[in-house]
Amino acid sequence: MANPVLVEVTRGNLVESRHRGMVVVVDGDGKVVFSQGDVEAGVFPRSACKAMQALPLIESGAADAHAFGNQELALACSSHNGEAAHARLAGTMLAAAGVDESVLECGAHWSFEQPVLINQARLLDRPSALHNNCSGKHAGFVCAACHTGKDLEGYVRYEHPVQAEIRGVMESLTGAALAVDNCGVDGCSIPTYAVPLKSLAHGFAKMATGTGLAPERAKASRRLIEACMAEPFFVAGTGRACTRLMETAPGRIFAKTGAEGVFCAAIPEQGIAIALKCEDGTTRAAESMVAATLARFFTEEPDIHAALMAQANRSMSNWNRIHVGDIRVTDALVA
Amino acid sequence: MANPVLVEVTRGNLVESRHRGMVVVVDGDGKVVFSQGDVEAGVFPRSACKAMQALPLIESGAADAHAFGNQELALACSSHNGEAAHARLAGTMLAAAGVDESVLECGAHWSFEQPVLINQARLLDRPSALHNNCSGKHAGFVCAACHTGKDLEGYVRYEHPVQAEIRGVMESLTGAALAVDNCGVDGCSIPTYAVPLKSLAHGFAKMATGTGLAPERAKASRRLIEACMAEPFFVAGTGRACTRLMETAPGRIFAKTGAEGVFCAAIPEQGIAIALKCEDGTTRAAESMVAATLARFFTEEPDIHAALMAQANRSMSNWNRIHVGDIRVTDALVA
Repeated sequence: MANPVLVEVTRGNLVESRHRGMVVVVDGDGKVVFSQGDVEAGVFPRSACKAMQALPLIESGAADAHAFGNQELALACSSHNGEAAHARLAGTMLAAAGVDESVLECGAHWSFEQPVLINQARLLDRPSALHNNCSGKHAGFVCAACHTGKDLEGYVRYEHPVQAEIRGVMESLTGAALAVDNCGVDGCSIPTYAVPLKSLAHGFAKMATGTGLAPERAKASRRLIEACMAEPFFVAGTGRACTRLMETAPGRIFAKTGAEGVFCAAIPEQGIAIALKCEDGTTRAAESMVAATLARFFTEEPDIHAALMAQANRSMSNWNRIHVGDIRVTDALVA
Repeated sequence: MANPVLVEVTRGNLVESRHRGMVVVVDGDGKVVFSQGDVEAGVFPRSACKAMQALPLIESGAADAHAFGNQELALACSSHNGEAAHARLAGTMLAAAGVDESVLECGAHWSFEQPVLINQARLLDRPSALHNNCSGKHAGFVCAACHTGKDLEGYVRYEHPVQAEIRGVMESLTGAALAVDNCGVDGCSIPTYAVPLKSLAHGFAKMATGTGLAPERAKASRRLIEACMAEPFFVAGTGRACTRLMETAPGRIFAKTGAEGVFCAAIPEQGIAIALKCEDGTTRAAESMVAATLARFFTEEPDIHAALMAQANRSMSNWNRIHVGDIRVTDALVA
């Protein structure tokens, strides 16, 4: 059966485009609180699972050895815009480990955000690996690897100890098997593993609640999620959905996007986590889906509910600032 | 019933994202030669119908009065990249009518193409209306309006004689009623009207074949389509799908994209036209859909067939140029 239409894009009085998808909300025990669509199907989490991948940075002792605070930890979990502050902090993290950007294996790209890209084009000949949206995650990998005496060469590869360790962490959190047959290569060259959406949500619910985790991992998980909530600019950047969602209810919402229409989120105080994917991989729809799903859990706080629904249902204007249509979630998502 | 999945995006050995859509191919009599999905549903053609909207430029006598050649006519039908040659030619067309870019009501925007945008950011404080992807179409409107003594003010509005004339042309070609209730505002501020995909394809089949058209309109239609096929760079630009498709079989394929996953195309020598829409509005999928649908009509010419299928099924690489997956059409589209 086809996944349901969760987001519509209107023009005039008509629906112009439709986005299907799947959404699941689970608690720390893995109990499904809400779902739409096929949430057992395998989904590549892409960058939405960066907070899981950052656990070795803390558990290795590297973060404490370098006295990393919330900004560094948030950047390790980020898909940032490549703004100057992001690139600079990634460089600072590498310097703490005694290396520089030449060790990064993520590749380089111009910012995906147009205003940042225009600024970069005026200031830079070309972007460096520090501007890659994944440079903070890679800096975290490098700091953990250096601290534990691992050879850095090839740290992005499936068989390298850095990726083997991350694979173990993610298997433990999601309860899903990660291996060559459900593995793909991500934009930044590290492995990404397709897991059921429900397992992905359960992993984040465990991180948000500590349920079923050893004390050290529960503590490291809470520290990463709190760092992201404390420094939302360093998780994404100016104008970005992750940053705006976390600013909507400071310290209460964790949210992280991934390529191809994935979003993970958590509300630690309510003990739940969300994982979702827009079937066609479109970010605009995933952003509406996550905002509306989060809003379901703030019905008793009208200001926050309204602020989240304003991110779910958005007006679209053209180059002359004339209103042309809306992006809106369907009844399948509205509480 | 849900529209079929027509394009899949893979990563590793798995499908990561799926695009549904509808495709129709008709001949000059409106007979359906091939279809997938709900082709009776209303679709905003957006920029895919620019060649229809350019007919008054020729029929008014303005194009001949200004001795416009293939480049100017192609630009009038274009959604261009805002490259220097595009912006310059739009300015030349306006100058022929005795006006300048200050009369344009399309608004201004940076190029959608990253390499062009980077170049613009280094050379320009900000883009002008000449850089708007629709500036050639608007220049065509302005030239026709000036030639026939129409007041330019508000030429983008539904009730203005310029838009009333275009509405009449499009109703005649598509056989669909265009009115306030199926009207939306396009990115460049002119009206766009949702019509059944089949009607849109029939309109282009009439333009490509002349079937059922008065001799003057048949001649003007052929002239526009031939201009686009002769000057594909001026219909889109460097690296763009419309340009590449038309370069694949010079003088034999017409192709024009529209926002939100629409594509129209024609093979005049075979007397057929194509209209399609990706349900979720994604350009990458619409580009694969149109290339594969065109390829169905070149099975007896292996080189052209292969070149079109290479545009339908494309490899995706990451920032390190590692192959990560593919965009590919499903069996629903392959002949």
